Amino acid sequence: MTTEPSAPPPAAPGDAFHVFDTTLRDGAQREGITLTVADKLAIARHLDEFGVGFIEGGWPGANPRDTEFFRRAREEIDFRHARLVAFGATRRAGVDVAEDPQVTALLDSGAPVVTLVAKSHDRHVELALRTSLAENLAMIRDTVAHLRAHGRRVFLDCEHFFDGYAANPAYALEVVRTAHRAGADVVVLCDTNGGMLPAQVQAVVRTVVNDTGARIGIHAQDDSGCAVANTLAAVDAGATHVQCTANGYGERVGNANLFPVVAALELKYDRRVLPPGALAEMTRISHAIAEVVNLVPATHQPYVGLSAFAHKAGLHASAIKVDPDLYQHIDPELVGNSMRMLVSDMAGRASVELKGKELGYDLGDREVLGRVVELVKERESRGFSYEAADASFELLLREAVTEGPHRFFRLESWRTITDQGADGRLENEATVKIWAKGERILAAGEGNGPVHALDRALRAGLERLFPELARLTLVDYKVRILEGRHGTQSTTRVLITTSDGTAEWATVGVADNVIAASWQALDDAYTFGLLRAGLRPGA
Amino acid sequence: MTTEPSAPPPAAPGDAFHVFDTTLRDGAQREGITLTVADKLAIARHLDEFGVGFIEGGWPGANPRDTEFFRRAREEIDFRHARLVAFGATRRAGVDVAEDPQVTALLDSGAPVVTLVAKSHDRHVELALRTSLAENLAMIRDTVAHLRAHGRRVFLDCEHFFDGYAANPAYALEVVRTAHRAGADVVVLCDTNGGMLPAQVQAVVRTVVNDTGARIGIHAQDDSGCAVANTLAAVDAGATHVQCTANGYGERVGNANLFPVVAALELKYDRRVLPPGALAEMTRISHAIAEVVNLVPATHQPYVGLSAFAHKAGLHASAIKVDPDLYQHIDPELVGNSMRMLVSDMAGRASVELKGKELGYDLGDREVLGRVVELVKERESRGFSYEAADASFELLLREAVTEGPHRFFRLESWRTITDQGADGRLENEATVKIWAKGERILAAGEGNGPVHALDRALRAGLERLFPELARLTLVDYKVRILEGRHGTQSTTRVLITTSDGTAEWATVGVADNVIAASWQALDDAYTFGLLRAGLRPGA
Repeated sequence: MTTEPSAPPPAAPGDAFHVFDTTLRDGAQREGITLTVADKLAIARHLDEFGVGFIEGGWPGANPRDTEFFRRAREEIDFRHARLVAFGATRRAGVDVAEDPQVTALLDSGAPVVTLVAKSHDRHVELALRTSLAENLAMIRDTVAHLRAHGRRVFLDCEHFFDGYAANPAYALEVVRTAHRAGADVVVLCDTNGGMLPAQVQAVVRTVVNDTGARIGIHAQDDSGCAVANTLAAVDAGATHVQCTANGYGERVGNANLFPVVAALELKYDRRVLPPGALAEMTRISHAIAEVVNLVPATHQPYVGLSAFAHKAGLHASAIKVDPDLYQHIDPELVGNSMRMLVSDMAGRASVELKGKELGYDLGDREVLGRVVELVKERESRGFSYEAADASFELLLREAVTEGPHRFFRLESWRTITDQGADGRLENEATVKIWAKGERILAAGEGNGPVHALDRALRAGLERLFPELARLTLVDYKVRILEGRHGTQSTTRVLITTSDGTAEWATVGVADNVIAASWQALDDAYTFGLLRAGLRPGA
Repeated sequence: MTTEPSAPPPAAPGDAFHVFDTTLRDGAQREGITLTVADKLAIARHLDEFGVGFIEGGWPGANPRDTEFFRRAREEIDFRHARLVAFGATRRAGVDVAEDPQVTALLDSGAPVVTLVAKSHDRHVELALRTSLAENLAMIRDTVAHLRAHGRRVFLDCEHFFDGYAANPAYALEVVRTAHRAGADVVVLCDTNGGMLPAQVQAVVRTVVNDTGARIGIHAQDDSGCAVANTLAAVDAGATHVQCTANGYGERVGNANLFPVVAALELKYDRRVLPPGALAEMTRISHAIAEVVNLVPATHQPYVGLSAFAHKAGLHASAIKVDPDLYQHIDPELVGNSMRMLVSDMAGRASVELKGKELGYDLGDREVLGRVVELVKERESRGFSYEAADASFELLLREAVTEGPHRFFRLESWRTITDQGADGRLENEATVKIWAKGERILAAGEGNGPVHALDRALRAGLERLFPELARLTLVDYKVRILEGRHGTQSTTRVLITTSDGTAEWATVGVADNVIAASWQALDDAYTFGLLRAGLRPGA
């Protein structure tokens, strides 16, 4: 029994150029990623929203989770832009294609498109597949024809194409021609080991386009650090189908990163490969997918990284005061990112002044500006980092620029106790002694860890006086151990992100130990939250 | 007064091709990096050992730390391969070059080579520099000639060259000719905003090489994700000087990464650009520099990343059992890296079997292999990750394959107390109750944090029975909060690296709270250490 393919989606993208995403299949091979079916469905929704033309969902039949994904995707997702693609191999050697359960599973997935992986390097046919060169061609021909006969669109991935072409060009080309003649819509040349450089890719793709007449795609791995450039080089040579993964996730170093590839095509080639408006969602979608796979979004990723438009050099900061475009290759808003001025002792006065202006503080007074710069330098030398803790920096600015009092509450002391009894049960409790509105308050809390218990105790003590605290939630908590180099003792930096439901802010704490550092970051987080709620200390 | 330049180093690299490193100047602009003078000296030593031809040390005169660096580098480092380079700007507009203190500071640095940055984009001359196009040329001419007259070798960085060439090619070319005629050895074309793609870089470099006769260098930023490819494209077009940074550190997204650039030149262009034997040190040097700048080495960096030759896909793992070269673009040992098989529920039996073999355990028995695979799946679903915790995986294997007892000690209970008193003083104490060699041991410890106190208590309790523990030190401690997605509670994963002075091993713990997770990782760390010391549990 084979399931009928789903109907084509209502707003199918134009077919002249394919943006083909394989995050769910090849991207999932990245070290450290393990996707549940729910994760895969969430990522598929993000990719469809971004407007890719094809989403390769996995290998149904090889992996029960992938079989389940295709079933649920058919039922649960109403794709607006993308077509779902099942990935699988050509039939096994010496087996009738109709009898090969792996091929049948591809049909059963219901995906309207199938990517077949085939060997195109003679050595791999013999060593890994252990069959003859002729039988490999027959496997390709039979499998493509069988899937076409069942109404599927077929793309053929030529594994190790570039290495294979170097070793035996005639055979590699014969693989392309065989797939093309059997009815494959696109023949994808894969740099599976990622060793190619753009000039080589361009020359080979040009030859294959000219010699075979097949529609050519490119699949590049990043082992030489050139996957984006190799993908674009293939497009320059006539490829009209690019296979990428979100954030470049993939086996070993990774795959060609979807985001810089489509940004280059849209912004530098002036080629429309996404639905209108999609590019401006790119940064958000990149970060959302990172969250789903449970990786921190790569801060230095082109276009979408937190640092991609962050300026630190004093030279740059001064020029940017004149014109932001002087040090930006594109307007960051085109990709949904934004320019940031970094506060750092390297940046000097210009950056602190610009950052102050961004936050609404006038630091025109040179004496005040100098004091803030000194304070930042001193704190940074102790391990503080304000680059990712805007709210703590704003509190520092506020205390330097405005008259006190600056705080709503003051710590007297705290204690946390964590124990695990003979029964294995963990307990965490904390007590705090704080002063607020002239009262001395003693409060206790329990939690699933010592910091959680401390947070609970602090809230228990303060919520009567500051009911606004109930609206605040901690949305992220990061710990970094700063290594004690040069014989100094190691310290701990904690970054906390807090939300009041409409905005988020980050605060920092640095201390010898994680609980003390967390306390400082919590203190800043709640102080900033109460200021945001319109309260004034001492009022 | 100007200091005389240092003598050329004894083993000067050939001058036909320049590997020019700017980690200490441009690399330091990366968000999150702050370098002390000691850090800069340590990095310079690593770069010299790697064999780069030039090390740009900073901007003496603009930054007191950089002035200090040049002074100490002259006194403290005996460079074997590299020449030290001072970076600075052309003289100010309307000022006699001999009277410009910034230019004098370049001479005072004593560096035998100076890189001058100059504007080559007409718009930048007018908007950022606020001078005339003619005066900008005069500034270049005067400054190059002045430094040459004082015996310095001069390289000229043309800032924003590619954007400038697009806007006003005649003026951009005139900048190159002016510097060349005034005596600059190399004119470096900078893609300062990082927006270029390889085909553009190649075309422009080719034109400049042909039209000016100057020796051309390339400096590429990575904003389009193409800095490595852009650097190689410039070399293809005739550039013989490449400016890079270790690990690609730099402003915004970063600079062209030194390591994939030199690896491509050596291994794919078959061009000798490093001293013999240096390439095999590349992975170690990349990680050492990351340690100095206090960043975690990027795991997915080409060639040198921990994951660069790590195989996860079941398909790949099966093929690698036949021949490792089937899925590697180079032999990882050429760059000092190594192949790793990842243990993951995606990988299946082939990877676990290979990993077991790597560790010396025979998992030929299908029943045992199946049990280990199930156990790994179950643990990974709870947040454990064995990819970075080889020692914990080996203990898991050992417990599945060999007869017990497997542990040297057993926990009854523990407690940690952390408090900060009204005087601000922090105290951490821990008590543990453990069983070992038939004894029940109660021990206490103090430390600079609760985990440190727990570690001390554990050691205090066990060192009498196991004096081998005294040799073990914790060299790294990492905490990751695994977000509680889909409504589940968040958990904490701790990775600990332990050393016995000759080897290091990593262990993992996962629990609701950081102290409990740390306890598990410590338990594995010491168990593994005692096994390595030759002890057998129960003996």
